[in-house]
Amino acid sequence: MASIPAQLSPSPSTSGTATVSIDLGDRSYDILIGEGLLDEPATYAGLPKSSTALIVTNTTVGPLYAARLQKALAGHHKKVLVTELPDGEQYKDWPALNQIFTDLLEQAADRKTVLYALGGGVVGDMTGFAAACYMRGVPFVQVPTTLLAQVDSSVGGKTAINHPAGKNMIGAFYQPQRVVCDLVTLDTLPQNELLAGLAEVIKYGPIADAEFLGWLEANMDALLARDRAALRHAIRRSCEIKAWVVGQDEKESGLRAILNYGHTFGHAIEAGMGYGAWLHGEAVGCGMVMAADLSARLGLIDEATSRRIRHLIERTGLPVRGPALGADRYIELMQVDKKAEDGEIRFVVIGPLGQAGMRPAPDAVVRDVIAAHT
Amino acid sequence: MASIPAQLSPSPSTSGTATVSIDLGDRSYDILIGEGLLDEPATYAGLPKSSTALIVTNTTVGPLYAARLQKALAGHHKKVLVTELPDGEQYKDWPALNQIFTDLLEQAADRKTVLYALGGGVVGDMTGFAAACYMRGVPFVQVPTTLLAQVDSSVGGKTAINHPAGKNMIGAFYQPQRVVCDLVTLDTLPQNELLAGLAEVIKYGPIADAEFLGWLEANMDALLARDRAALRHAIRRSCEIKAWVVGQDEKESGLRAILNYGHTFGHAIEAGMGYGAWLHGEAVGCGMVMAADLSARLGLIDEATSRRIRHLIERTGLPVRGPALGADRYIELMQVDKKAEDGEIRFVVIGPLGQAGMRPAPDAVVRDVIAAHT
Repeated sequence: MASIPAQLSPSPSTSGTATVSIDLGDRSYDILIGEGLLDEPATYAGLPKSSTALIVTNTTVGPLYAARLQKALAGHHKKVLVTELPDGEQYKDWPALNQIFTDLLEQAADRKTVLYALGGGVVGDMTGFAAACYMRGVPFVQVPTTLLAQVDSSVGGKTAINHPAGKNMIGAFYQPQRVVCDLVTLDTLPQNELLAGLAEVIKYGPIADAEFLGWLEANMDALLARDRAALRHAIRRSCEIKAWVVGQDEKESGLRAILNYGHTFGHAIEAGMGYGAWLHGEAVGCGMVMAADLSARLGLIDEATSRRIRHLIERTGLPVRGPALGADRYIELMQVDKKAEDGEIRFVVIGPLGQAGMRPAPDAVVRDVIAAHT
Repeated sequence: MASIPAQLSPSPSTSGTATVSIDLGDRSYDILIGEGLLDEPATYAGLPKSSTALIVTNTTVGPLYAARLQKALAGHHKKVLVTELPDGEQYKDWPALNQIFTDLLEQAADRKTVLYALGGGVVGDMTGFAAACYMRGVPFVQVPTTLLAQVDSSVGGKTAINHPAGKNMIGAFYQPQRVVCDLVTLDTLPQNELLAGLAEVIKYGPIADAEFLGWLEANMDALLARDRAALRHAIRRSCEIKAWVVGQDEKESGLRAILNYGHTFGHAIEAGMGYGAWLHGEAVGCGMVMAADLSARLGLIDEATSRRIRHLIERTGLPVRGPALGADRYIELMQVDKKAEDGEIRFVVIGPLGQAGMRPAPDAVVRDVIAAHT
């Protein structure tokens, strides 16, 4: 199993803008993390110029930030348009994606047009996929306004929409030109979305950095109180770990799959309940508890470590018990997971703490895990 | 302007299977051209193994060849499924694309599943785009059964679907694992589709190889009579030229756009008449006549050369006069062409014969060209 190199060990910065570089050859880009970045024209310096730009956002985030982003971009593009999509995972679908294409075509947007994704993971995934496909590829910039998007979905180039038969089944690997994480936008985040983001932050401890898990245990109260210095460090460290993993394996042929820790059980919960009923981060939080238990039952970590992960997730207020879908339904849903091969489910497991790997698990053990946590 | 290197000058082979290699680093692949390749299991040796494979075809080609391809693949995949889409450019759309995704998900197809595109350009473009997007990318193989697809759409990795507001507006650059051109499948091709394919074959002369244009003039009767040796050479030479151009510029940032000779006017004809009313190749044939005239009016070739191109296209029986949409409508439709930038139409022009380049043209000259050919 892989472990993250020592030179990436935590180096907290207490103020200013942090930059995390994603090294992917000619698809490299920077993640900027700081306060007030969204409004600052300098944030966008060096990005591709185009006469037309399109901000894609949703009906919740748009009214809060779209006009501010338009103003900040006024010197960079002649015309900055806005498309507002309906808000919610249930709209991460073809009709909403097609709305972006229709708006672009109605404005005669060409293949140099830059798209800006302003919102959470759904907006980011859809805008990225629209950018990947519009005229076979136009540049795009991520401006994530949720913690979840800042630490996870806006980093690494995975874009997608859902299919009624499976989450994120239709998509592309497509890298943004830049990611702009403005800590100030987290002020307006509903509490349950903050927690959903913390689930993904917590994830990086067990899979890659035991020391970071300790830092999270020590700083969870500050994070829950939205202390900006704590958030900056948590986001920066999460992005560093994700950047390292994605740099090793951009197309998810191996190592990158460890980022899906908690996601196999989590996707089954989301799909089983109908997309939108559980927040993605809530399902992942619960999925991590189940995957930790699975790792313990497979003898890869001890019971105490599994309980430690569960306890940290519980402290945030995230659910640690899945819906009672029945083991058969969980297993059926997990078999269409993208990590499955020939119908065999492959789980991300922990062991030792701070390292992760992938493996199948005996059916009986999986059923025990489901029984214990639903 | 670029000209194709001398080592790619014509070298007719009169029998056997010809191989043209497309050199794109880790996305390189071979084009096989020969008789009876479709039925021969050896044709598929070395392609990615997967337990499930899906042949995507249409209701015209499927009944002729799908069972034969299934049989040839029986030793390579455990399960070879078939999806039949409705036939026609008007079905190159989201509902048909989504049918492929739904069939894949219903069969629990995983990210190793191989797709086979069996049919013409529409099937190839849609299957390739489905392969690019399904679980963010699965391998696919082109088995083109039309001359047009064999010399053009199956080579070079452009995949797409249409949007009501524009042709091929939603797509990806995504390379196949192999292209299998079986000359025998051309026996069942309707005559108007043979001519549509010849339009794209003719294209390669003016833009890249004046000698090939001479060969076409000398061998047009044999091509129209479907002489296999003549077809083999025409397909091989077309693929060689396209391979060279695509190898220089995979993502169409520059040189590759010369392959769109005739396509700017042609797309306007297709869109203006409603997709499917004119065959793509018919529209391109007529578009080449218009683009040759434009080149002459811009002083890049002489009148005689423009007439020579027109005469060769006329000999095939392809239309050389566009529909009377009016100049305003032509220009409006050409402004949403993917090669346009900031609303300025960029035309592929010839000059001297055997070399091509891109440039805008004065509005009055474009209107003269439209008036003279509609």
